[in-house]
Amino acid sequence: MATSTGICVAVDAMGGDFAPNVNLKGALSALEADESLRIALCGDEAFLRAEWKKLGSPHSQRVEFAHAEDVISMEDSAASAVRKKKNSSIHVGLNWVREERAHAFLSAGNSGAIMAASLLLLKRIPGVDRPAILIRLPTADGYVIILDAGANVDCRPRQLSQFAKMGSTYAEHIEGIEFPRIGLLSNGSESHKGNELTRETDGLLKKSDLNYIGYVEGFDIFRGRSDVVVCDGFVGNVILKLSEGLAETTFQWFRTEIKRDFLGMMGFLLMKKLLRNFQQKFDYQPYGAAPLMGINGMVMISHGSSTEIAIHNGILMAKKGVEQNFVSKMASVFDEKDEEDSPLNQVESS
Amino acid sequence: MATSTGICVAVDAMGGDFAPNVNLKGALSALEADESLRIALCGDEAFLRAEWKKLGSPHSQRVEFAHAEDVISMEDSAASAVRKKKNSSIHVGLNWVREERAHAFLSAGNSGAIMAASLLLLKRIPGVDRPAILIRLPTADGYVIILDAGANVDCRPRQLSQFAKMGSTYAEHIEGIEFPRIGLLSNGSESHKGNELTRETDGLLKKSDLNYIGYVEGFDIFRGRSDVVVCDGFVGNVILKLSEGLAETTFQWFRTEIKRDFLGMMGFLLMKKLLRNFQQKFDYQPYGAAPLMGINGMVMISHGSSTEIAIHNGILMAKKGVEQNFVSKMASVFDEKDEEDSPLNQVESS
Repeated sequence: MATSTGICVAVDAMGGDFAPNVNLKGALSALEADESLRIALCGDEAFLRAEWKKLGSPHSQRVEFAHAEDVISMEDSAASAVRKKKNSSIHVGLNWVREERAHAFLSAGNSGAIMAASLLLLKRIPGVDRPAILIRLPTADGYVIILDAGANVDCRPRQLSQFAKMGSTYAEHIEGIEFPRIGLLSNGSESHKGNELTRETDGLLKKSDLNYIGYVEGFDIFRGRSDVVVCDGFVGNVILKLSEGLAETTFQWFRTEIKRDFLGMMGFLLMKKLLRNFQQKFDYQPYGAAPLMGINGMVMISHGSSTEIAIHNGILMAKKGVEQNFVSKMASVFDEKDEEDSPLNQVESS
Repeated sequence: MATSTGICVAVDAMGGDFAPNVNLKGALSALEADESLRIALCGDEAFLRAEWKKLGSPHSQRVEFAHAEDVISMEDSAASAVRKKKNSSIHVGLNWVREERAHAFLSAGNSGAIMAASLLLLKRIPGVDRPAILIRLPTADGYVIILDAGANVDCRPRQLSQFAKMGSTYAEHIEGIEFPRIGLLSNGSESHKGNELTRETDGLLKKSDLNYIGYVEGFDIFRGRSDVVVCDGFVGNVILKLSEGLAETTFQWFRTEIKRDFLGMMGFLLMKKLLRNFQQKFDYQPYGAAPLMGINGMVMISHGSSTEIAIHNGILMAKKGVEQNFVSKMASVFDEKDEEDSPLNQVESS
């Protein structure tokens, strides 16, 4: 029987391109790395018990099985899957969080379904209009936080300014950045630049109590001019995928070119470690998972093609969020008494 | 006295961070590369004659001076500068095109002012709602055309579908790509993805006679999945600057890391040529200039920090556009008889 001490992370064992194999291995290595961690594996119990047995049924006193009959696939339409597959591994994991049997939920499955099911089962933090996906991208000497990375394609200024508030809270409480610098992504640094959405958001953020540094541009992202970059989910998704694609193209190009150049090939061999480090830097795996911000519960979305390391890191990140009381802190930020009068909550003209 | 044969490109000698030095040197090397080229240098005539003399007054039978008293700076607000500095080097160059004294105009100056003055003096091609800036970005084995790269931050579906038509015409007539593949940038490949703008544009493009391949995502840009990527100018500007910034960050990171690793440093030295090639690949200079599409005249915008090579390439690109009758071809594409009935011209709901 599972103990009830320690923090329990519910892990969707069925979500992602390499499930359940990497999900179980990632869970196992997280259990080994952290003795106060408990894990609830969500999916078909008999199947998962058999799979876990293949690994030697390790740490069984810290592992539970949250039985789920259904699996939502990557191809399923989020809205209909959430309605129809009510007993999916995503639903079951989120229900464990709702019922306080688990403290956090992590899935590498269908991100649209994770978001829709989270809204349905855990609800939003009061005062938050829309949840946002928060990601971290590498800069020359660190990381930059970007949100929204894809939860909302059409945003209003009020939503964008709430993303700023959520990003600032995350940077402060999870990353330990004091008074984090918030930048609003635009096509130029001057206030008259931007589009309708950013110009109105710029006005709201200037009146906020955030450490808002104004507009940042595309090249500022990797220069680390701000700790947090705020944008709508359409642009955020383009940024994330473009960065992945550019890193990939760089490597392809290097591999093609070195074949034409003997000295270059020698150099490539000598630099192999460096190049591998570079590739890892632009890899999503070290970050493990992207927190779904604004949901009344700790929910982490992992990349569909997550490996064991990504799942491992995502689980430990979820645990850290729980230890930091992140959701309560976020709720208290949105529950300030002057909320009604805050410029962030004034209805924008539209 | 200047001859009147050959193609004349009016070059803004005063625009850009390194004007007039690189502008004149770029013009000179273009004249040397192409014997049928003529150039009109726009700016203060006495000053420019003296500067040209420092270069030995070469090719004087193919050089004219288009006198302009004013200079629009990078800091000037485009709209007011265009109204107030009516005798700027940008105005004079564009007027030379309007009066058919020059066949094309190139400037590395204030791009907002170039666009506003082009609209004012040369007008749009009939049927085109908004001009767009077209850029080329490197892929693993070639280039991809992206528009709009920053002329219009808030677009409507009809405008985006016109950009697709302009990009397709450019790819076919300037790049020689038969039946170019047109992709619409989105946050996912399925039709239900995208935002309001892309979903409606997707509908228009599906009904068009373009070789429309549907949505493309961030990572598809550098993979070269389509020949042309269509997006609004806000997103296009973010893409352009992000790519520049990422290439820059990659180099900074390499430079820092190699200092920590002896083998890596050896490798770096051996790979120097390769790395330089890479940097050049992500450099705007080989493309020289971005054509301003949809204007009734050949106008090229060069990067503000253009060097001699960029100006050189931009001038030759402008000449190529004139030789290909690019503006007439574009006008004929927008002047088709069934234009009124074309789905691209149906007024979208909004």
